[in-house]
Amino acid sequence: MSSQASSLLPLFDPKTIAIIGASDNIQKFGGRPIRFMKEAGFTGTIYPINPRGGVIQGLQAYKDIRDLPEAVDMCIVTVPAPLVVDAVRNCAEAGVRSVVIFSSGFSEVSEEGVAWQAELAEIAAQHDIRMVGPNCMGTLNPASFAIGTFASFFEHGWPKPGNISIISQSGAVGGHTLVLARERGLGVRNWITTGNEVDVDVADCIAHCATDPGTTVIAAYIEGTRKPERLMQAFAAARANGKAVVMMKVGASEVGAVAANSHTASLAGADAIYDAMFRQYGVVRVYSLDELLDVSGAAAAGQFPARNRLGIVTISGGIGVLTSDIAAMYDLEVPELPEKAQKKLKALMPLAAVRNPVDTTAQMLNDMPVFEGSLRTMLSEGDCDATLVFLSTVGFSPRMMAQIREVLENVRADYPDDLMILSMVCHGPEREYLEGLKYLVIEDPNRAIRAIAALVDFGKSFARAAPGSTADSPPALPNEAVAPPRRALSEIEAGDILAKAGLPMTPGRLANSADDAAQAAMEVGYPVVMKIVSPDIQHKSDIGGVKLNLQTVDEVRAGYQAIMAAVGQHARDAAIDGILVAPMVSGGVETIIGVHRDPVFGPVVLFGLGGIFVEVLKDVTFRIAPFGVDEAHRMINEVRGRAMLDGVRGQAPADVDALAMALAQLSVYAAANGDVIESIDINPLLVRAKGEGAVAVDALIITQSD
Amino acid sequence: MSSQASSLLPLFDPKTIAIIGASDNIQKFGGRPIRFMKEAGFTGTIYPINPRGGVIQGLQAYKDIRDLPEAVDMCIVTVPAPLVVDAVRNCAEAGVRSVVIFSSGFSEVSEEGVAWQAELAEIAAQHDIRMVGPNCMGTLNPASFAIGTFASFFEHGWPKPGNISIISQSGAVGGHTLVLARERGLGVRNWITTGNEVDVDVADCIAHCATDPGTTVIAAYIEGTRKPERLMQAFAAARANGKAVVMMKVGASEVGAVAANSHTASLAGADAIYDAMFRQYGVVRVYSLDELLDVSGAAAAGQFPARNRLGIVTISGGIGVLTSDIAAMYDLEVPELPEKAQKKLKALMPLAAVRNPVDTTAQMLNDMPVFEGSLRTMLSEGDCDATLVFLSTVGFSPRMMAQIREVLENVRADYPDDLMILSMVCHGPEREYLEGLKYLVIEDPNRAIRAIAALVDFGKSFARAAPGSTADSPPALPNEAVAPPRRALSEIEAGDILAKAGLPMTPGRLANSADDAAQAAMEVGYPVVMKIVSPDIQHKSDIGGVKLNLQTVDEVRAGYQAIMAAVGQHARDAAIDGILVAPMVSGGVETIIGVHRDPVFGPVVLFGLGGIFVEVLKDVTFRIAPFGVDEAHRMINEVRGRAMLDGVRGQAPADVDALAMALAQLSVYAAANGDVIESIDINPLLVRAKGEGAVAVDALIITQSD
Repeated sequence: MSSQASSLLPLFDPKTIAIIGASDNIQKFGGRPIRFMKEAGFTGTIYPINPRGGVIQGLQAYKDIRDLPEAVDMCIVTVPAPLVVDAVRNCAEAGVRSVVIFSSGFSEVSEEGVAWQAELAEIAAQHDIRMVGPNCMGTLNPASFAIGTFASFFEHGWPKPGNISIISQSGAVGGHTLVLARERGLGVRNWITTGNEVDVDVADCIAHCATDPGTTVIAAYIEGTRKPERLMQAFAAARANGKAVVMMKVGASEVGAVAANSHTASLAGADAIYDAMFRQYGVVRVYSLDELLDVSGAAAAGQFPARNRLGIVTISGGIGVLTSDIAAMYDLEVPELPEKAQKKLKALMPLAAVRNPVDTTAQMLNDMPVFEGSLRTMLSEGDCDATLVFLSTVGFSPRMMAQIREVLENVRADYPDDLMILSMVCHGPEREYLEGLKYLVIEDPNRAIRAIAALVDFGKSFARAAPGSTADSPPALPNEAVAPPRRALSEIEAGDILAKAGLPMTPGRLANSADDAAQAAMEVGYPVVMKIVSPDIQHKSDIGGVKLNLQTVDEVRAGYQAIMAAVGQHARDAAIDGILVAPMVSGGVETIIGVHRDPVFGPVVLFGLGGIFVEVLKDVTFRIAPFGVDEAHRMINEVRGRAMLDGVRGQAPADVDALAMALAQLSVYAAANGDVIESIDINPLLVRAKGEGAVAVDALIITQSD
Repeated sequence: MSSQASSLLPLFDPKTIAIIGASDNIQKFGGRPIRFMKEAGFTGTIYPINPRGGVIQGLQAYKDIRDLPEAVDMCIVTVPAPLVVDAVRNCAEAGVRSVVIFSSGFSEVSEEGVAWQAELAEIAAQHDIRMVGPNCMGTLNPASFAIGTFASFFEHGWPKPGNISIISQSGAVGGHTLVLARERGLGVRNWITTGNEVDVDVADCIAHCATDPGTTVIAAYIEGTRKPERLMQAFAAARANGKAVVMMKVGASEVGAVAANSHTASLAGADAIYDAMFRQYGVVRVYSLDELLDVSGAAAAGQFPARNRLGIVTISGGIGVLTSDIAAMYDLEVPELPEKAQKKLKALMPLAAVRNPVDTTAQMLNDMPVFEGSLRTMLSEGDCDATLVFLSTVGFSPRMMAQIREVLENVRADYPDDLMILSMVCHGPEREYLEGLKYLVIEDPNRAIRAIAALVDFGKSFARAAPGSTADSPPALPNEAVAPPRRALSEIEAGDILAKAGLPMTPGRLANSADDAAQAAMEVGYPVVMKIVSPDIQHKSDIGGVKLNLQTVDEVRAGYQAIMAAVGQHARDAAIDGILVAPMVSGGVETIIGVHRDPVFGPVVLFGLGGIFVEVLKDVTFRIAPFGVDEAHRMINEVRGRAMLDGVRGQAPADVDALAMALAQLSVYAAANGDVIESIDINPLLVRAKGEGAVAVDALIITQSD
C-alpha cells in the first residue's frame, strides 16, 4: 500500500511470469494461463512451478519458485487457500515483484481466511510485492498477451489492444465487460479484477492508469471502497492528465446505514455520497454495461468538447425529433442554424427541414451531393461542438455504403478535428472502416446522444481542471475559527462557533435577566426574537418558550418574564442556560445546509431547500468537504427545486452567490474538524434577495461521542 | 374512415397486387416491389401497369388498371404527385379494394398538395377504398411476401414472419425498426407506414391488429394524432383481446401550445396528455428503438404476469446487485427466499449468496447440479412471477453451452409455463435455440429488467380489463348536474354548479347587506370567511376584500362594513355582486384538481399537490375524462409528492378515497360538458384526514368563448 502507483507495472506489463500450481490440464486454473499465453504468443518467459517438476505443456517446470534462474515480474498463485500464504512467502524469498492470487476461500468465507489475508498483506508490505486478489479473476495485457487470469473467454476470441483500461472489483463483471469490448471492437490497454483487495485495489489501479501513457480511458466497476481519499487522489490525477474515468457503481438501492440522529444524517445514503464524489471529480457514472461500453468507446476517440451544442443531420424526421427529445434530457442544446445556412440548405433540398435537426429525408440516400452539402453546411456554419448523423440501416447495404463512404472520406479530409458521430446499423468491418476515419459509430440514436453528453461532461471537467483555468480552491478557513469542543453544545455556542468559521449566523446573545435581555435587544437590533436555551427542552414553541417579532424594550422585558413563567410551569426541572435574544429574521428562501460524517467518506456537506423539498421529496445533494465556490454552485444547481432560488410568486431572485459561499465555507470548516464533528445542521439558512446575503437562523452541532 | 377495421385486410394480406408506374428498372420505386416480390416468391398475382404495356420484369403489363381481368386487393401508386388523383380515380373505377401511394409532394409541401389530398379522401370515402399514404413507405406482409413498399432493405435480408405488427407514421422509423427486428430474429406479422394519413391512420391499423388473430404485439411509432378517440378505442380493443401495445411517441420536448390562461391549462403540455392516455389504456410507452424492440420482443412470447415478484439467479454477485438496483427503479420486487429454500441452497453451494438475488458465483459454470439446483429451487419455492438468469458470455462457449442447454431443457420440461429470462451474450443460432425452449434472451441485464417490468405492466392492465374483473366504471353524473352557461361565471356560480355535479364544495352564500351576511353566516355555520365577489377585482386580499375566521355575528357585520369600505376606497368603479360568506375551512392537504380542454384530446383532468408542488416542481398528472375511481387512485399515486397524502410532520393520513372520488366525479362532469367547458380550477381542494372527506375552497369555471 505504501508503494507508488508505478509499482504496478510488473502486474500490468510483466515480461516474466511464474505459475505456482501449474498444470498440464488446460481446463484447470493452473493450466489455463499457460495454454492461452502459448496460443496467443506471449513473448516473455513462462515458468511453470509444480512440486513434481518435469515438463508442463511443453515447458520446463520448476519444483519451487525459489529455484528459478531469475526474479520474475509476476507470479500466479493457483493453489488452494490454505497453501497460499506459504506459496507467497516463497515468492517473497524469490524476489517476485507481483503476485496474482486466484484462490478463493478467504475473508469472504471465514475468520481463518481473514487471518490469512492479514498475513498476505504483511508479506506484501514487508517485501514490496504488489498483490492482486485473493478471490479474483486476475490480470491481462492484450498487447503483450501476458495472461494472469484463469478466465476462459479466450476460447471464443482475443481482446484487441487499445487505450481503454478496464478495472473491476468483480471478476465476473470484469470478464463480461472485456468480452463486450471485444465484440464491439474496442481496444483494451490493461485489464484487472481486484477481488478481495488485500493489497492492490481499484484506487491503485486507477492511479496507475492515470499516469500510464497507453491509457486514455479508465472504465471501472466498484461496489464500494474503504479508502475514498486514495480513490479521489486517483480521480484527480486522471483528470489532470485528461483521462476519462467512467464508473459503474452498484448498490444504489442498498442505502447505507446512517448512524447519527441529526436531520442531515438521515438523508445521507452512502450511494448519494459516491454520486457526489463522481460529480466532484468529473467522473461519468453509468448504470448499465451497455452504457459503460458506449461511453468508454466514445471517450476512447479522445474528443471532449467543453460546450454542449449539438448538430443533427438525419435521413428521418422522426429520429430528428427523438434525438432532440433525448438531447434535451441530457442538457445538450440543439441550436437553430443561422438563417443564411438554412437558406443554403433549403436551396439544396426544398423538401427538407433545415432548422436543426436537419432532416434531409430518405431522399438523401439517393442524392450524395445533398448528403455532403447538408453535412458540410452543419459543420461550417452550425457552430456546434458535435454533429450526429443518423443513417438508419444503410450500413447493411454495400451499394449505398460505397457512395456514403466517399462523402464521409471527403468531409473528414476537410474537417479533420470535428467530432462526428454516426448513428447507424452496420456490420463489424464497415464500422471499423468508419472508425478508421475518426467517426464514432453508435447504432442506437439514444445511446449515441447519451455518449455525446458524457463527452461534453468530460470536456467541461477537463476545462475546469486545466492549467491556467480559474482554480476553484476552497476558501480560506478564518483565523478566528475554532474546533468545536467535544461535548453537547447549545445553539448559542453552535452559532458562535459557526460565525467564527465564517458562516452568516444571526448575532444572538444569551440573556439572564429582563434587564440583560433589554440590553441584548438593543445590541442586536429590533425587532427581535427570544427563545429559551436549555439542553432539556426540545420543542420550545410548544411550551411557550419562544416569542417572535418583539418591537420594543417593554415587549422584550415582558417577553422575558412570560417565557420564564411558561418554562417554570411546563418544564420545571429543566436546566436553563438563559434566553437567547436575536434579531427577528424573515423573508428569503428557506434552505438547509449541513455536514454529516459519513463512515467511509468523512465529512460531507449537504444542501437542500427547506420544508417539503427536504422532508417529503428528499431533494438534497451532497459534496465531499472541502470544495470551492464554483463546486458549490454546481451543487446548488442539482436540486429539483432550483427554480425556488430564481424567484417564484413574484419574489426577487435569491442571493445564490452568498449561499454558495456559505456552503464552501462550511465545507472548509468541516474538513478542518472532521475528527470532531459528527454533524452540523444549519436549518434554516435564509437566502435573501440578490446582494442581500444569506442568514442562518438556527444551528446545531453534534460532536463525535468518543 | 367510415369503414370497419377489417376493411384493411386487402392492405395487410393482399392476394392480387397492381403497380401503377411499374418499371423494368429495379432501382426505381415502380420497379422495386415487383423485383422483391418475384425474388421472395409472392404466390399471389402481380399486375404491372404502364401506359406502354408490354412485358415488365417478365410479367405481362397492362396499359390501364381498368383493363385488368379482375378487381385487385391492392394497387401501388408510384406516379408523381400531380398524376396521383387521376390514377386513384381509375383504381376506383376498376374496383380496387385498397391503394398504397408512395408519392410525396402533397400536404407536406404545398396548398395544391392539400387540395389533392382532399380529393383523395373523397374518392376513398365514396368508393370504400382504403388508402395508405401519400408520402409513405407502404406495407409488407412477411408471411405471404406481399410487398407494398419501395424500401430497399430487402437487399440485405428478409424479415421473418411472426406475431409482432409494426405500425409507424414515419417511413424511415418503420423501415429501421423492421431491420432491427430482423437482426434480432423477431417475427413480424404486419408492417405498415402511414405517412400523410389521408385515410388509413395509425389508429385504424392498431384497431385492425387488435382483432387480427395473427397479431399478439403491436409496436407503434407516432408523432401525434388528430383523432385520439379512435386511438383510444383501438387501445381498448387491443387490451380487451390481450394484445400488448408498445408505443414510441416522440416530441416530448416540443411542448404543445396551450391556449387558455387558467392555471390548469398552463401545465397541460400535449406530451403529458399522450402519456396520460397511454397509462390509462395500459399501453407501454418506450423512449428508444432499443427499448421498442426489447419490450416488443419480450411481449411476443405472450407471458404477462400480473404480479411483480422477480427471482434472480446469477453467476455474478455484482450483476445481482445491479439488477436489484434496476428492479427497484422499475417497481419490481426482489423478495427474500423462504428460509427453507435458503438452507437448501446453502447446502448445495456453501459459498453462494442465497437470499435472492441468488449468486451462485462463476463456480456454477463448472458444476451443473449447482446451476440446476439453484434454478429449480427459485422456481419451486421463490413464489416469483419471473426469473432472471444471468449467464454472462457463456453463450459464446460451445463447450459450456452444451452443458447449460441440457439443464435448461430439463428445467423447462418441469416448469413449462414459468416466465424465465436469460441475460447472456450469445450468437444468433444459440439464441434461437434457447428461445425455442421458451426462454427470453436479452443480452443486457438492465434491458432485461426493463422488459420484465413492461410484461408486468401489461399483465396488470390485462387483469384490470379482464371479463369478471371489478369494472372501474366512471361514477354516475348526478341528476341535478347542469351544464355551465356559456358566459363569465362568478366563483359562487362556479361553486353551485360544481356542487350539483357532485363535487364537495364549501356551501357559500352571497350576501348583499350586513344583515344578510349575518343570516348567511348562521346558515353556513361559524367560523366563516367573507370575500368580495366582483368580476372586476382580481387580487381580493390586497385591497382588503377578504376577512378570515370570523367567529361571531358582530364580527360578521363589522366585516361586511369593512370590506365594503375597503372596496369603495380601492376599487371604486368595480361592479359588485355582493360578499361571499362561507365556512372557514382549514387543515387537510392542499391539492389542486382541474379540467383543461386539450385541443386534440378534449377535456382532460389534472391533479397535483398544492403550493410549490405545482408551481415550482410542475408535479402534476393527467387523465382523459371520464374515468373511474381506481384510475383516479393510480393517477394520485403518480405524483412525486405522493407521501404528502400519507401524513407528514405527524399529520394523519389523508382521505385519498374522497380525493379519488372527487377526481372521478369531476372527470364525468367534464366529459358530459366537453363542448362548453374551457377549464375548471378547483384550488385548493383540501383533503382531510381519512374518513373526513375533502372540501373545495375555491373554484373557477371558464367556458369556451365561441
